[in-house]
Amino acid sequence: MPTKDVWDGGRLCYGGDWNPEQWPAEVWREDVALMRRARVNLVTVGVFAWSRLEPAPGRYTFDWLDRVLDLLHHNGIRVALATPTASPPPWFSLAHPGALPVTADGVRLHHGSRDTYCAAAPAYRSAARRIAGVLADRYAHHPALALWHVHNEYGTTCHCEHADAAFRRWLADRYGDLDALNAAWVTSFWSQHYSDWAQIAGPRATQYLANPGQLLDFRRFWSDTLLAAYVEQRDLLRAANPAVPVTTNYVLGDWVPVDHARWASEVDLVAIDHYPSAVDGGAEEQTALAADLARGWARRGGRPAWLLMESAPNQIHTTGRMHTKEPGRMARHSLAHVARGSHGAMFFQWRAPVGGAERFHSALVPHAGPDSRVFREAVRLGEVLGRLAETGAGRVDAAVAIGWDAASDWALRHPGMPARGLDHRAEVAAAHRALWRAGIACDVVSPGDPPAGHRLLVLPALYLASDATVDWVRDHVRAGVHLLVTWLSGVADEHGRIRLGGYPGAYRDLLGVRVEEFHPLADDDRVPLTGGGTGRIWSETVRLAGAEPVDEYLGGVLDGLPAVTRHRVGAALTWYVSTRPDDDTYQRLLAEAARLAGVTPVCPQAPPGIEAVRRRDGDRSWLFLLNHTDRPQRVPAAGLELITDEPVDDAVTVAAGGVAVLRELPR
Amino acid sequence: MPTKDVWDGGRLCYGGDWNPEQWPAEVWREDVALMRRARVNLVTVGVFAWSRLEPAPGRYTFDWLDRVLDLLHHNGIRVALATPTASPPPWFSLAHPGALPVTADGVRLHHGSRDTYCAAAPAYRSAARRIAGVLADRYAHHPALALWHVHNEYGTTCHCEHADAAFRRWLADRYGDLDALNAAWVTSFWSQHYSDWAQIAGPRATQYLANPGQLLDFRRFWSDTLLAAYVEQRDLLRAANPAVPVTTNYVLGDWVPVDHARWASEVDLVAIDHYPSAVDGGAEEQTALAADLARGWARRGGRPAWLLMESAPNQIHTTGRMHTKEPGRMARHSLAHVARGSHGAMFFQWRAPVGGAERFHSALVPHAGPDSRVFREAVRLGEVLGRLAETGAGRVDAAVAIGWDAASDWALRHPGMPARGLDHRAEVAAAHRALWRAGIACDVVSPGDPPAGHRLLVLPALYLASDATVDWVRDHVRAGVHLLVTWLSGVADEHGRIRLGGYPGAYRDLLGVRVEEFHPLADDDRVPLTGGGTGRIWSETVRLAGAEPVDEYLGGVLDGLPAVTRHRVGAALTWYVSTRPDDDTYQRLLAEAARLAGVTPVCPQAPPGIEAVRRRDGDRSWLFLLNHTDRPQRVPAAGLELITDEPVDDAVTVAAGGVAVLRELPR
Amino acid sequence: MPTKDVWDGGRLCYGGDWNPEQWPAEVWREDVALMRRARVNLVTVGVFAWSRLEPAPGRYTFDWLDRVLDLLHHNGIRVALATPTASPPPWFSLAHPGALPVTADGVRLHHGSRDTYCAAAPAYRSAARRIAGVLADRYAHHPALALWHVHNEYGTTCHCEHADAAFRRWLADRYGDLDALNAAWVTSFWSQHYSDWAQIAGPRATQYLANPGQLLDFRRFWSDTLLAAYVEQRDLLRAANPAVPVTTNYVLGDWVPVDHARWASEVDLVAIDHYPSAVDGGAEEQTALAADLARGWARRGGRPAWLLMESAPNQIHTTGRMHTKEPGRMARHSLAHVARGSHGAMFFQWRAPVGGAERFHSALVPHAGPDSRVFREAVRLGEVLGRLAETGAGRVDAAVAIGWDAASDWALRHPGMPARGLDHRAEVAAAHRALWRAGIACDVVSPGDPPAGHRLLVLPALYLASDATVDWVRDHVRAGVHLLVTWLSGVADEHGRIRLGGYPGAYRDLLGVRVEEFHPLADDDRVPLTGGGTGRIWSETVRLAGAEPVDEYLGGVLDGLPAVTRHRVGAALTWYVSTRPDDDTYQRLLAEAARLAGVTPVCPQAPPGIEAVRRRDGDRSWLFLLNHTDRPQRVPAAGLELITDEPVDDAVTVAAGGVAVLRELPR
Repeated sequence: MPTKDVWDGGRLCYGGDWNPEQWPAEVWREDVALMRRARVNLVTVGVFAWSRLEPAPGRYTFDWLDRVLDLLHHNGIRVALATPTASPPPWFSLAHPGALPVTADGVRLHHGSRDTYCAAAPAYRSAARRIAGVLADRYAHHPALALWHVHNEYGTTCHCEHADAAFRRWLADRYGDLDALNAAWVTSFWSQHYSDWAQIAGPRATQYLANPGQLLDFRRFWSDTLLAAYVEQRDLLRAANPAVPVTTNYVLGDWVPVDHARWASEVDLVAIDHYPSAVDGGAEEQTALAADLARGWARRGGRPAWLLMESAPNQIHTTGRMHTKEPGRMARHSLAHVARGSHGAMFFQWRAPVGGAERFHSALVPHAGPDSRVFREAVRLGEVLGRLAETGAGRVDAAVAIGWDAASDWALRHPGMPARGLDHRAEVAAAHRALWRAGIACDVVSPGDPPAGHRLLVLPALYLASDATVDWVRDHVRAGVHLLVTWLSGVADEHGRIRLGGYPGAYRDLLGVRVEEFHPLADDDRVPLTGGGTGRIWSETVRLAGAEPVDEYLGGVLDGLPAVTRHRVGAALTWYVSTRPDDDTYQRLLAEAARLAGVTPVCPQAPPGIEAVRRRDGDRSWLFLLNHTDRPQRVPAAGLELITDEPVDDAVTVAAGGVAVLRELPR
Repeated sequence: MPTKDVWDGGRLCYGGDWNPEQWPAEVWREDVALMRRARVNLVTVGVFAWSRLEPAPGRYTFDWLDRVLDLLHHNGIRVALATPTASPPPWFSLAHPGALPVTADGVRLHHGSRDTYCAAAPAYRSAARRIAGVLADRYAHHPALALWHVHNEYGTTCHCEHADAAFRRWLADRYGDLDALNAAWVTSFWSQHYSDWAQIAGPRATQYLANPGQLLDFRRFWSDTLLAAYVEQRDLLRAANPAVPVTTNYVLGDWVPVDHARWASEVDLVAIDHYPSAVDGGAEEQTALAADLARGWARRGGRPAWLLMESAPNQIHTTGRMHTKEPGRMARHSLAHVARGSHGAMFFQWRAPVGGAERFHSALVPHAGPDSRVFREAVRLGEVLGRLAETGAGRVDAAVAIGWDAASDWALRHPGMPARGLDHRAEVAAAHRALWRAGIACDVVSPGDPPAGHRLLVLPALYLASDATVDWVRDHVRAGVHLLVTWLSGVADEHGRIRLGGYPGAYRDLLGVRVEEFHPLADDDRVPLTGGGTGRIWSETVRLAGAEPVDEYLGGVLDGLPAVTRHRVGAALTWYVSTRPDDDTYQRLLAEAARLAGVTPVCPQAPPGIEAVRRRDGDRSWLFLLNHTDRPQRVPAAGLELITDEPVDDAVTVAAGGVAVLRELPR
Repeated sequence: MPTKDVWDGGRLCYGGDWNPEQWPAEVWREDVALMRRARVNLVTVGVFAWSRLEPAPGRYTFDWLDRVLDLLHHNGIRVALATPTASPPPWFSLAHPGALPVTADGVRLHHGSRDTYCAAAPAYRSAARRIAGVLADRYAHHPALALWHVHNEYGTTCHCEHADAAFRRWLADRYGDLDALNAAWVTSFWSQHYSDWAQIAGPRATQYLANPGQLLDFRRFWSDTLLAAYVEQRDLLRAANPAVPVTTNYVLGDWVPVDHARWASEVDLVAIDHYPSAVDGGAEEQTALAADLARGWARRGGRPAWLLMESAPNQIHTTGRMHTKEPGRMARHSLAHVARGSHGAMFFQWRAPVGGAERFHSALVPHAGPDSRVFREAVRLGEVLGRLAETGAGRVDAAVAIGWDAASDWALRHPGMPARGLDHRAEVAAAHRALWRAGIACDVVSPGDPPAGHRLLVLPALYLASDATVDWVRDHVRAGVHLLVTWLSGVADEHGRIRLGGYPGAYRDLLGVRVEEFHPLADDDRVPLTGGGTGRIWSETVRLAGAEPVDEYLGGVLDGLPAVTRHRVGAALTWYVSTRPDDDTYQRLLAEAARLAGVTPVCPQAPPGIEAVRRRDGDRSWLFLLNHTDRPQRVPAAGLELITDEPVDDAVTVAAGGVAVLRELPR
């Protein structure tokens, strides 16, 4: 167990990625002075520095890094030191062309970007271990070192022969024999029966639809392979100094073949990178969801706090262009993460580079230099974070849980589903958004998570259900936890095989319904509901088998059939939602389900556009109020506002786009 | 000549693909009981079962198939036994990687889907012959066997070296010497002159536009290569028992490199798979066209009847999602095929699979099981088909013929056409739809078909015209058959070389026009016509050379020039249509052309939305009335309604979405 | 210096590409008779004729070309004789598969189209030199020969090993050592430091964003490589007869890796091919810009005249279809080129081919033959050109210069820019269009061009600025030339490295502004300006540093900040435009900037839709008036109208869609 306190006595972390290897030494000195001005206390160093640390095989140039770490230490700034393994130098590719990654089409990717390696290639793994080991030997006891940051954003796959061989070994471990694999993948369809392990490879380009079981396991295999690559480095770093915590930064994205929940127990600290893709209110919703996800992974790993390791100081990438964040938004997003459990706010990146592919990625010190809005906002954020350290002791208070499952997400992306674009993540986001708009706090949980006192469990399109998952859900209901299940949940087992006899095979009895047919909707279709709302994306022929209808389809072939049902199972109510309700309807539905489960909003009197998050520590509590509107908002509350250090008697006015944080009066 | 009666004494076939290899034996028994409940009398077995029949090279496991065939026979269900060659097992690919298919980009496709072979690869052909031969030896005299079903949906191409070599042999056969090939392909353009056969390959990825002659011949080559693969198997099967008929199921689709008309004389029974892509009225129009196409191929092969071998019991694939068929639609579509000559209705598939890429393809027994709308409709359809056997004796009565030509379709898809998206199939469909809406029965014919008593021949965008095709058209006109030709017909010879001197070079004199310039229209352009309609897709500078104008362009650069013309040639009228009229205008135009040719609608008093098809056998006749509207329709008719067994005096009421079939009073 | 007069004593060239190798000899005789009827005086022969000239390696068949040249000479028609190297014959590819081009994905392209070679492959270069040398030996002194036309439309790239090796040599020449290359490409980003030349290759498919410096230099390398291929042939041809001028036809297009400005001094005559992509008024604007570009390149090469070498007699390719030119448009476009300095009008192609990929490309003799609108218009154009020879002596009169830079265009296309679709060409076109609509003549110049008396220099999104370019701009301002700079100009140095401290780093001081942040706009966003117009594509946080605001952003986060500024620097005004104004606003802005610089429209009283171009020779002048409207227009002018040979006293009426050319009265 690492003993070094990554939080340095409770201070919130503040800083970001710094790349001194891109700059002459005089810029280093200016940078450190600016960091001090901004109250930066943690910087990430060394990501992508491999070719500067080991310019030729076995030849190391550490002097610059020595100077950088000493300079930071001298200025009281702690270091998250990265292993540089996310970008092998060109000399590595030239020496080991077989370790370059290969696409499903058989195209071998060349160096010239980042992440140009196959993580299953022995030569890569060996080189990665070597550079990590040398760094561990040299810096494991450096006084500036607060945290090891392994690699960067694990998330690539490969279809080369090394990957195929590793996939076969992984499958043999998982299934034991070919009969089990053939059964899991249903290879009786289309004559795909495997009679020898050698016949199996990763899913390459093929003539038509690929086997969904193979595709699903390939993603799982990659998650485990990348995890093994991480663990190898972690173990080396730990061996050099067991006191120093080790982590890696999770990247979220639908292309990422990583089941972060399975990684939670292998990191000493859950760290995420978060770049919202929306430019309007959606950015706030994405931020809240990302933070709740991270908190869930941290809790699964047994740790209450986590860290926002990367975020954008300014421009965010959206479809086809960068969107420049409005004044105040950087701080509000950062504090939204802090409110939901991040022990600080870190950025990519400190200083905007002069070249390279990401030369226009935003930075705390932009191309224009420190005489700029963004740097002034950075200085102000440093002050604010300094005043909020005490909130780090609190735990976010939530009585609703939403189920998230990376494998269900992957399974729904497979070919041959009844509609394209089916998306577990989008359904989780829709349920989370509805609760967020209703002002109801929620956690995100993974199947198998230990019970945590929730009163309502929401499963949005949680497509796969192993027997263990079914038991986990059943245990919740048996314990009186209310349950709300949406379409496509529990349709298949953990291999993606349909649970027969009527959908959702896993939960039919719990829900008191039997779904006979799916009716996917066209992109612009809306199906009216008798309750006044509409459904989209999906609809179903729902037959009642004990449940009562709550809302019904109006018109069309499903006219009069139930759209939403409710069933009583012991002390719990169980709901089934067979379409995606419009946002208002969904918000009302989830608020009602929460109310019946005894759950109320965080701050019932808060005006619209105010996001409220409460953190508790025993009988102490802190209330974060984030104003996402463009006018000041008055919110009933009482306590001490920490940013202004002013007492609040009955209400606080939160500035347009601003944030207030109250140490509340004890209950 | 096979002597076994595939129709089993006149019963209409009913059943579908059954895959017992995917299920345990207890499901087999349930399945057969359900089949009997639904009056199923024919099932297709063995498609894609190769890896279950030959799990290792030369090792066969027939016991399960023996039991399946015996079980079916014992229950009075006949079998279409498939050769499983559409999906070689993984062991085959591993042993013969050179027989895997290659894309034009040089990507070798891997197994893991279906159809992962090159049909020109000797190793594949040899393995396919072997498994077909073994099946023939074992089952050719099995009493359940009604039909051999070779392979499945022939339709793949390949760009490997085996394919190149075969292409060169095919070209040498076709052209004799390189001079002829160079002339046909006009290789004088862009320095493509071939001086040695070895220089020729299939059309691989190249720098810019490919040679259109090469592309066209490559499709023809593949059609003939796939046909040869079929014929090899057919001959083996025939040799084992000449009494049993042999066929393969045609798949329709613009990617399919098969000229089905050329295959017509090689199958003992024309069988098609039909999956409409439209979800509204277009599905009915597509169904009628597919059936008329199949009937045309069957007639070309000398057989009046054909068989719908696959169709979807429920969900159909449309752009991006599956559309669930409304109640009654499955039966109505099935009976539309029967009306137009299918001797029954078969489905893919009997039971929905638990896994595999097509786990959500619809089935007569869905995931929900037999307690479901779809299975209840299946039982009802079985009853109805049982009452309609006598209609099988009738022949569809049609006096209009529409010309269809696979090679013209391929040629129009080539690069460098004056507009992209030019589509012979779409133009055939537009003409067919106009006639369908006008209630006028039509046949679909292929150039070279023997005369069949038609009074009007319609050639929609029949781009290629060999001298033989020109003679065939000329013979029609000489015999007094009226002719209606649309834009792009007869522009090129059989190699795609332009017939010079003014378009359409092949038919200028017959039509009395000379087209000087093409004016393709932008996607959303509509050009007004003086008759009140509009044209789209295309327009032309038409100069009169004997013809008279019937409709004219209004406004724009073609203002006042003829859009539609009519010319008298002996006893026949010849029409030229230089744009695609809107649907109403096209319907009026074709109705008028039919009227002047002496052709009237099938059921002139039928209300809109009623599809009427008459079949005759001598002086007996049957009238199929399909109600595509959502309310009951009253249709003047007299005879005996066969489904209800009720006499009809002067009119029958067809239920909303329903079907009536009358044995009419003799004329 | 070639002494042969390509203009043949001042006549305007008229003709096009002729491919006798595609036709039998009787067609040759008809063609030449038709050429004479149309007054054709120059034809391009031999493009793509390699396989007819050298049907097997080292075996030559020149007899047909001998006869063709003699026939033309006998009929008084001069010849631009092409080397056929743009399309090696199939025998070449078969003998040298390693000389076939390879894509970034590693796909080796096959013959079967055109341009299927790697111009860096030694075998190709050697074969090209050989055929060029043999042609030179045989025809250099043929009396018909007026011009050598090397190759055709140089414009392909390749990613094969030959290309990689050549790229490394080019880089070594450019940078001397790896340190300089690493600095230029900023390889410190993402660990891309190169420690050995062997590690460098062209930009292949890679994992994520590629290095922008590498991509930029790869384009430059290809421009120089293709130029070297041209120069090799030119030198051989010159050596055979120094009197004959040599050129190649430039093709314009965003995919073309050629910096034509750098080629200007290597051709004896700038020749361009021009195919507008727009079908409406945009075609006229594109035509004017293409002609001004060509004139700029010619001027850079020290020659006042240039030649439109290819254009479309009729249909032009637009998105997805061909658009048929309205009557009169061919002549108007041709004369627009002549007005702007083309010494004639040439077409691709003389006669439409019967086959090949471009069988539907338009031609002076279409498929319909000479009895056609297009050929009649061709005959008329020949007459008109014959009357305009004297205008060839004039030089276009322009006082505004727009900066164009191929490298800036390439750099903006690189990944990681703040928005996709940033486009130097489009910004040049927008500025040119604004001036064109304002009736103000302009030149297009390249950075480094010698001063030419302009009064206003416009730099639209001229992204890259080397120190030399900065000096060139500064020298203009110092000389009193007014300057108007738009967003994204001068942001980076010649390697694409950001000039730090605030944008636009190169010109901040000249403009008196400092841009702190970019705010790219979404595709359909419009930002209002206080002046009443709107901006799109882009906006910026502009801080004044000496300049005064001219127009301001209205609303949004930039509310009240300057959108357009003006600054005085000595005798010059300097303008900064931080967004793309709507067309009307841009036209007014540029007209005002021109007015303040002392520049007035060519023909201030011309009605809208009349394009006026004046050419001068000493005190003689000619005024071209092109009527792009569909009604006659009366334009104040005086002189002799050359086409009708009628005197004009105070105004001339230009027919709808027509052209008038006046020899003006001396000033």
